[in-house]
Amino acid sequence: MKIGIDLGGTNVDIGAVDDSYRILHSLQFRTADCRTPEELQTIVLDGARKLIAEAGLDGEQIDFIGMGCPGEIDTEKGIALAADNLPIDRIPFAKLLSDAFGAPAKLDNDANCAAWGEHMAGVSKGYRNVVTVTLGTGIGGGIIVDGKLLHGKENHAGEIGHMVIDIHGKRCGCGRIGCWETVASTRALTREVEHQAQYAPNSRLGKLIAANGGRANGKTLFIAMSEEDNMARSIFNDWIRSLEVGMWNIINIFRPDMIVISGGISKEGETLLQPLRAAVGKCSTMIRAGRLGGQAGLIGAAALDELSI
Amino acid sequence: MKIGIDLGGTNVDIGAVDDSYRILHSLQFRTADCRTPEELQTIVLDGARKLIAEAGLDGEQIDFIGMGCPGEIDTEKGIALAADNLPIDRIPFAKLLSDAFGAPAKLDNDANCAAWGEHMAGVSKGYRNVVTVTLGTGIGGGIIVDGKLLHGKENHAGEIGHMVIDIHGKRCGCGRIGCWETVASTRALTREVEHQAQYAPNSRLGKLIAANGGRANGKTLFIAMSEEDNMARSIFNDWIRSLEVGMWNIINIFRPDMIVISGGISKEGETLLQPLRAAVGKCSTMIRAGRLGGQAGLIGAAALDELSI
Repeated sequence: MKIGIDLGGTNVDIGAVDDSYRILHSLQFRTADCRTPEELQTIVLDGARKLIAEAGLDGEQIDFIGMGCPGEIDTEKGIALAADNLPIDRIPFAKLLSDAFGAPAKLDNDANCAAWGEHMAGVSKGYRNVVTVTLGTGIGGGIIVDGKLLHGKENHAGEIGHMVIDIHGKRCGCGRIGCWETVASTRALTREVEHQAQYAPNSRLGKLIAANGGRANGKTLFIAMSEEDNMARSIFNDWIRSLEVGMWNIINIFRPDMIVISGGISKEGETLLQPLRAAVGKCSTMIRAGRLGGQAGLIGAAALDELSI
Repeated sequence: MKIGIDLGGTNVDIGAVDDSYRILHSLQFRTADCRTPEELQTIVLDGARKLIAEAGLDGEQIDFIGMGCPGEIDTEKGIALAADNLPIDRIPFAKLLSDAFGAPAKLDNDANCAAWGEHMAGVSKGYRNVVTVTLGTGIGGGIIVDGKLLHGKENHAGEIGHMVIDIHGKRCGCGRIGCWETVASTRALTREVEHQAQYAPNSRLGKLIAANGGRANGKTLFIAMSEEDNMARSIFNDWIRSLEVGMWNIINIFRPDMIVISGGISKEGETLLQPLRAAVGKCSTMIRAGRLGGQAGLIGAAALDELSI
């Protein structure tokens, strides 16, 4: 039995995963209120203890513990170095987990874990060259080359959201201009929806946003589109074009077997995939949505023992 | 002893290479006037025969023949499929060479061979993750991940010159808008030099170009810069910024140990490298010029037998 831990800025998911990568039991704990590294550490370790107890496992049944973390990671030493939305300051999670539960433990970043989960147990299983694009507040990437995760120096590979596609575009949080995620993340999409709806308060989109206190969320645009709102369709088309440019860049650089789209928006399925597939139509790279949804990170973490590097 | 063949649109270089990747003897033949696949085939095979005779080799001394080709390649079958500037139409070079000289033969594309040459015997020897950027008429790429060349599906990986960095920019020969090579290739630089010099005929740059019949070449700008021409410096700075954006994209995607700049312009050395290094200063990826110059492709071709895939 393996334990997978998926640490995020809002929650941490902890699950017991069997050798076929099925989640037998899982728990979720809130991390958003954590103020110190010690608090965070306690939530993770106590949470894992609780999971193990509830799942009725004894220590000898646990073969491996894998953990996915946001931010900067030292994968070799198993240390979470720093993160934007969590009080992380060089927490040696691999050692802490290994000492607490008497099993080998590994740490990797969250985007890599999601990519690895889909590769080991999801949509890209059996393909050796795969780029997973995680669409969310930003755009993350997990790159698998020849069946292995590409980490790069200091584990910094895969920052595909900071690939510049518009050198005269908007400034990104990273300080550079025109990064892919400034136009193609779901946050960029939501902001554009809110911005344009101001000028069309009587449109279906405008009314949906007004009813939600002036804010859009990840579903607003898709609801308006399903109700034939032209402005919503136009915003979506522009966004797809931005997304497509970065996907073509990935194709030109890697020509992978498959690009996997993950993140909450991948639930939109064919509405999202069909135009992307049309855009890359003549090329042999497959475009698929992730199959494991929000569990990809947890399953991928539990499968980190299968990673040869 | 290995034979390396570097096929280009103007010439083909054929050399005898020893196990330490030194070129013992080499010959060059013109390919620019070839009109049919049969002519091209004859130039390559007769050229190799001549090289072998001149080098005083007998057949049993030849362990391997490797060839680099521009355009589309089927590396598995060793077939050159098509190329823009040569009459190539499914020429089975690997079989032709192997049958003619009684040794195993392999084919790969020219940018990959240049990257592989620098990796086996040049500046990136000993580094396992390296991206080689070949600056010329276009921008080519050879990507080494974990000590192996990244081929991608149908050998299409490494098209880094067609990474879009300016979605509102110039149309590229490939049909897309704003590819890196539309602004950062040496051709883009030369065109910009010619364009701007029209408006400053009395500048040093303007006079150099006028003296050359209205045309710039790869050295014009650097000569004017060495003579303190401000316009030349300004054009160069803009070009470096375009180059830098793509290099940062490569860093964000791969975070390689090293980026190697190859192509004729890499002879400019520190004039080119110093500002690029400054731009990526805080990052751990090294920026180096290729060490093998125009011989990288030939040496890399001869070393293709060391490629595990």
